[in-house]
Amino acid sequence: MARPIVTLTTDYGTNDHLVGVMKGVLLSINPDLTVVDITHGVLAHDILDGALAIGQAYKYFPPKTIHVVVVDPGVGTERRPILVASDQHYFVAPDNGVLSSVYDQTEALHVWHIISEHYFRQPVSKTFHGRDIFAPVAAWLSKSWQTSAFGEAITDFTRFAIPRPKTTGNTIRGVVLRVDQFGNLITNVRVEDAPALASADGKCTIKAGTTVVAKIVGTFAEGASGEVVGVVGSSGYLEICVNKTSAARMLGIGRGTEVTVELG
Amino acid sequence: MARPIVTLTTDYGTNDHLVGVMKGVLLSINPDLTVVDITHGVLAHDILDGALAIGQAYKYFPPKTIHVVVVDPGVGTERRPILVASDQHYFVAPDNGVLSSVYDQTEALHVWHIISEHYFRQPVSKTFHGRDIFAPVAAWLSKSWQTSAFGEAITDFTRFAIPRPKTTGNTIRGVVLRVDQFGNLITNVRVEDAPALASADGKCTIKAGTTVVAKIVGTFAEGASGEVVGVVGSSGYLEICVNKTSAARMLGIGRGTEVTVELG
Amino acid sequence: MARPIVTLTTDYGTNDHLVGVMKGVLLSINPDLTVVDITHGVLAHDILDGALAIGQAYKYFPPKTIHVVVVDPGVGTERRPILVASDQHYFVAPDNGVLSSVYDQTEALHVWHIISEHYFRQPVSKTFHGRDIFAPVAAWLSKSWQTSAFGEAITDFTRFAIPRPKTTGNTIRGVVLRVDQFGNLITNVRVEDAPALASADGKCTIKAGTTVVAKIVGTFAEGASGEVVGVVGSSGYLEICVNKTSAARMLGIGRGTEVTVELG
Repeated sequence: MARPIVTLTTDYGTNDHLVGVMKGVLLSINPDLTVVDITHGVLAHDILDGALAIGQAYKYFPPKTIHVVVVDPGVGTERRPILVASDQHYFVAPDNGVLSSVYDQTEALHVWHIISEHYFRQPVSKTFHGRDIFAPVAAWLSKSWQTSAFGEAITDFTRFAIPRPKTTGNTIRGVVLRVDQFGNLITNVRVEDAPALASADGKCTIKAGTTVVAKIVGTFAEGASGEVVGVVGSSGYLEICVNKTSAARMLGIGRGTEVTVELG
Repeated sequence: MARPIVTLTTDYGTNDHLVGVMKGVLLSINPDLTVVDITHGVLAHDILDGALAIGQAYKYFPPKTIHVVVVDPGVGTERRPILVASDQHYFVAPDNGVLSSVYDQTEALHVWHIISEHYFRQPVSKTFHGRDIFAPVAAWLSKSWQTSAFGEAITDFTRFAIPRPKTTGNTIRGVVLRVDQFGNLITNVRVEDAPALASADGKCTIKAGTTVVAKIVGTFAEGASGEVVGVVGSSGYLEICVNKTSAARMLGIGRGTEVTVELG
Repeated sequence: MARPIVTLTTDYGTNDHLVGVMKGVLLSINPDLTVVDITHGVLAHDILDGALAIGQAYKYFPPKTIHVVVVDPGVGTERRPILVASDQHYFVAPDNGVLSSVYDQTEALHVWHIISEHYFRQPVSKTFHGRDIFAPVAAWLSKSWQTSAFGEAITDFTRFAIPRPKTTGNTIRGVVLRVDQFGNLITNVRVEDAPALASADGKCTIKAGTTVVAKIVGTFAEGASGEVVGVVGSSGYLEICVNKTSAARMLGIGRGTEVTVELG
């Protein structure tokens, strides 16, 4: 039988002892786990950034994977810890909306407020629930798979809308959601928002801030040196890129910059 | 039977091939290992920083975990490689004090100078004992669990005192030990040094450098925007924090800055 | 029976979801894998840097390890995906020369152009072959070990020469290949290029850019404070170092700087 998988997505970084401690807690409860880091580089305190990270990654794991997602600026306050069963996956997280993108990808959604404190590490600190609540609950779940043992079903969980582009006439106004490792500007404009993006000869004009994008290409390598191009990336979002160069640095553009697509 | 666990704590970073090489050596000797990174972000050459990292993490792992700790500015010199059994855990490290915080947390301590060279990777380099001595010894230990086979028991191992705050009258003088991923300033002042820290209405005045800390709160989120607050963190240390902001950057304060607590 | 090992070497960094997604794909196909990161800190788009990383690491893993190497600025273009069997190891990578250092280390080399699309994740994106081609092929290979099932044998694979130093009379002219985590300047000069490097009293004068290196030492710790020294590192390359200090920062020198060794 395959070993259960627990993934971790946090804003803890990897320079402190925090992630190591969570893995120690997980393996102390269930030594048979395979623990996988999705990323610990979520922007600090940034729930939207965390929602996008787990939303783009969880589907690629096998059914029954347990995803621990800790971006938790409200740790120790009244916000609830929750357990979610969705789309053949499990999630353990604070109820602050960090699973919003997961919620958007499924209809069948079961959410429990975690209240069974005997599954927690005692004493529960007020500042490190990754160690004291989320990791222990994930590890115990991987042994029993009894979701309802952890608390009571709720329907009033927190959910925010991932920012979508706005269409006015022929103009789609989106925004840069994230700068990736290569300096590519990941926008929130998807092919379904602007089908013209799908073809290189699609008639449209793209602007990132005040920069006019030269053209839409299929691969990163098709841009000439220094040329600003649009690429529909592997998650379906329009990306603004420069071949082998950081578009973010070259254009001085980052998260939040407006991106417009003019059709026709 | 559970797979043996080996953890790694180093100042190697993760951008070079070094950590990967250590994992290759470990798995070549014992393919059944579960290898877990605690952190590779210990400050370069900084034995105190390494001591704090492993000291705050090891207890959360299951008994019989083997912790490899390599912060080793004296690699290749006369400093000895050691094997330590302590508090139901094992440690493999250079004898330079990097385990001092571990030593502080237990009475029952057994230390061996590692001299059995047939467990080393040959030829032993003078600059990468992580690969040639520490990883191989950890892997062989995970197969035999015969600590005494690796060398001779010693009692004159290197141990330094983790800096403790000094109390004069009503004034406790501590220091910032570390800046964490969120920019929180982790001090060396603990609740047992100043019990007043434990309650939010504890009468005391805290200064970090020249900044007066507004108040003590229980959770990071209780500070108002831009307000400098004190929090007793998950390892029991006083931390100086700003809600959702880097206190280190806002105050221009880092490691070594004096922190005072005036009681009464 | 030991679990199969897949290693990952990429320029993806660890702040995005990309590496996590590759691990999800690997474990979805073969849940029994042990996945090991070599590094995700290869310089962006830098095939030489990737070639050096995997070339210095792969040998330390057990025979039959499968190494996935993705530094792939031409993703989605005509460059071929390849599967390589070499030196008792397997490699899955783009055919852009990123395995050149691996090729240099063995005579027995078998290379296949991967064309069996039923092993790919469908639909295949044009920008993330790590997810859609390289990870799936590695995972399927770890189940069948039938290399020839993945494509057709080729001999015209891409291979470039790792830059070697040039010798003119008594002068060896090399170059800084890489700056490591500690700020050491890793050059391309090896002991076999200049046997005098092997002994501390070897008569030679080393210059890094315009800086004259004080002496050759056996360990990092032998240099005096602020003294620029040469060390033959654990992979056999001459390194320019300063004890407990970043030579790169102190000298303002980085990749590409000329290093000369004058013998006699």
